[in-house]
Amino acid sequence: MNQTDYAQLDRDDPLAHKRDDFQLPPDIIYFDGNSLGALPKRVAEVVNKTTATQWGGDLIKSWNQHNWVSLPTSVGAKIAQLIGARADEVICCDSISVNLFKVICAAMSAVGSHDRRIILSTRDNFPTDLYMVQGVEAFLGQQRCELKLVDESELIDAIDDQTVAVLATEVNFRTGRRLDLAKLAEVAHSFNALVIADLAHSAGVMPIQLNQWQIDYAVGCTYKYLNAGPGAPAFVYVNQRHHAALKQPLQGWFGHSRPFDFNPDYQGAAGIQRMLVGTPPVISMQAVNAALDCFDGVSLEQVRAKSLQLTHAFQHGLACHDWASEFELISPPQAQHRGSQLSYAHPHAYQICQALIDRGVIADFRAPNYIRFGFAPLYNQFREIQVALEQLADIMESQSYLDPRWQQRLAVT
Amino acid sequence: MNQTDYAQLDRDDPLAHKRDDFQLPPDIIYFDGNSLGALPKRVAEVVNKTTATQWGGDLIKSWNQHNWVSLPTSVGAKIAQLIGARADEVICCDSISVNLFKVICAAMSAVGSHDRRIILSTRDNFPTDLYMVQGVEAFLGQQRCELKLVDESELIDAIDDQTVAVLATEVNFRTGRRLDLAKLAEVAHSFNALVIADLAHSAGVMPIQLNQWQIDYAVGCTYKYLNAGPGAPAFVYVNQRHHAALKQPLQGWFGHSRPFDFNPDYQGAAGIQRMLVGTPPVISMQAVNAALDCFDGVSLEQVRAKSLQLTHAFQHGLACHDWASEFELISPPQAQHRGSQLSYAHPHAYQICQALIDRGVIADFRAPNYIRFGFAPLYNQFREIQVALEQLADIMESQSYLDPRWQQRLAVT
Repeated sequence: MNQTDYAQLDRDDPLAHKRDDFQLPPDIIYFDGNSLGALPKRVAEVVNKTTATQWGGDLIKSWNQHNWVSLPTSVGAKIAQLIGARADEVICCDSISVNLFKVICAAMSAVGSHDRRIILSTRDNFPTDLYMVQGVEAFLGQQRCELKLVDESELIDAIDDQTVAVLATEVNFRTGRRLDLAKLAEVAHSFNALVIADLAHSAGVMPIQLNQWQIDYAVGCTYKYLNAGPGAPAFVYVNQRHHAALKQPLQGWFGHSRPFDFNPDYQGAAGIQRMLVGTPPVISMQAVNAALDCFDGVSLEQVRAKSLQLTHAFQHGLACHDWASEFELISPPQAQHRGSQLSYAHPHAYQICQALIDRGVIADFRAPNYIRFGFAPLYNQFREIQVALEQLADIMESQSYLDPRWQQRLAVT
Repeated sequence: MNQTDYAQLDRDDPLAHKRDDFQLPPDIIYFDGNSLGALPKRVAEVVNKTTATQWGGDLIKSWNQHNWVSLPTSVGAKIAQLIGARADEVICCDSISVNLFKVICAAMSAVGSHDRRIILSTRDNFPTDLYMVQGVEAFLGQQRCELKLVDESELIDAIDDQTVAVLATEVNFRTGRRLDLAKLAEVAHSFNALVIADLAHSAGVMPIQLNQWQIDYAVGCTYKYLNAGPGAPAFVYVNQRHHAALKQPLQGWFGHSRPFDFNPDYQGAAGIQRMLVGTPPVISMQAVNAALDCFDGVSLEQVRAKSLQLTHAFQHGLACHDWASEFELISPPQAQHRGSQLSYAHPHAYQICQALIDRGVIADFRAPNYIRFGFAPLYNQFREIQVALEQLADIMESQSYLDPRWQQRLAVT
């Protein structure tokens, strides 16, 4: 693809104007929105206003006056629109890991059978997903809960009548491979097993239809393609058919039906509210609220269409180079089978990644030897792919990645 | 006490200059720092900087460049100085409710005996503390965990060899009564039981000596007397003697010994780090970090001395009035037996509280009929007590609290 083509793609991009919603540093090409989304300008404003005007000015009265108390549900309802769920099926709270614990326990409680104890997942699922199941397993004992791990390709066939729930991430964090959640739910339900979906790498970047796909539970994060800031509160979805019997052990006062009665006995609120635990982190949640407004007037079909174009352009742009064969594409070669990222294995992945960052092209490294390029359709441009590939070509041809500066790894990679 | 006395107390106050650290609205007297602390000016600055400069400018690189990754431990170490703990015994994370779950489970695991299953607490403990135990109870079954509730006055005598742990809040949220945690730990340990202390209403307002008192576990919140903002991340303390065997079921990737190896098997980090679960909420945690700097150059003995003076001045100022007998002081009458609040029962507590708020005096209401006045020594002034009592006198003498505007209760009281 030549220079003209990239420029033409930008001119034809119906989402091009959305880049103005974001504060992006000049001279940086940011292909790491799959790890930490960029700052929406409105979020900076809202965070300041929440801090200085609401907290600073209206103090405790803000809980009513600025509807702080209903933020988890109102923000949840906005997220619901992006993942094909009903407004009352999604709530914003805690971290994705803590929410995983809740839904793993909720699924065990919903299935109820003492004959079943298997939580089925994939060996290369994001580790915290597996760790949270291992935590439940250690706590309850393996006679009540056991994590079973299989390869991603074997997942559907491994579901059986011992399965309590399948815990699957829609888009794999390493490879970007996309699982067919609808198919997974169909098979799981045929065994009376449930599905817990992790949407960390898909929410906000592809159309998700949790209701239509009949997903039972889901969790997701807001700091990647939803651009709500580092460690921003996560979300949790519970299909409405599980609301009446919903049980999870993190019974905090914000999940009580009448928290301000201060009654010593827990009585869970109706529906999704029962997933709340402690006092909501207001400043962070206002950030999520504002960040979601970047999706106003945009359909996820448009976002997905651009995402497919972006990964396609990068993949084929890289493939033209002589050194391309050094990079092993570990993402599915066909764009429709992956999320919005491309991952390549290379023996010097860490150093190449650092050399790119040094030149203002931000990608990331994942152990043991992967370099990931994440594409955020709301702000990435096609011309950035062109520049990034020029820089990468220069790094590869000059072997400048062998610079001793990049031999020592940083704490967070 | 006459006008001259209040003014003199302010002139003699060694903490008077600290008020300048806070952004307080003019014409507001804020006696609700026990619910939501006021905004420290430096927090507003740090929140803006973290959002616009760090996240917005340095993006993903900030995890290393701005030490985001070590915030839970560095902020924890700062909190440790305020609660008489070692730097490596405290970490900042999650909500107080979620942290309660971790320490309840950790205590059960540490005691280990299958003969013991009682978590002992008080009927009027803050409800979320009780709900979290009820969650463990429901999840594990009463054969492994059972919440036993007694009156506060019976707590020490109720400890026996069935007790896994005593869960006690140092300062009662309703009455302000202060428990003797050192005595509690002494008795509990004599039965080989453990102590979990909730410091929500004491951290930052009185000297706490967790190590000296031999407290096993503690949780606390940062948005009351630590002034870190609505729903700011909480903290958790684990006495160093429990570190080696520390186990808790919320095993997230940030509690892993090598999170960025992305290994599918959980291996807990050493010590207090094992209490971490998900990705830290950076913006909120930078707020905690900055808020703690308000304690620079201040000793908690000074804070406590002023707190005792404040509650004493309010109590005795109120008692001079004809209508004082309508208010039943439910806080201990002697200042040393309470935290930094005064609570009064009154049949019209809700309406009186609303009438005060309407006149710019912010107190709060707690069901069924309590009005609470919280005193924050870092920013409250003695002259504010004088004005608040003048307003209260006018409300009581005119019976303006009977205004129909205040018949309907707000969502958050």
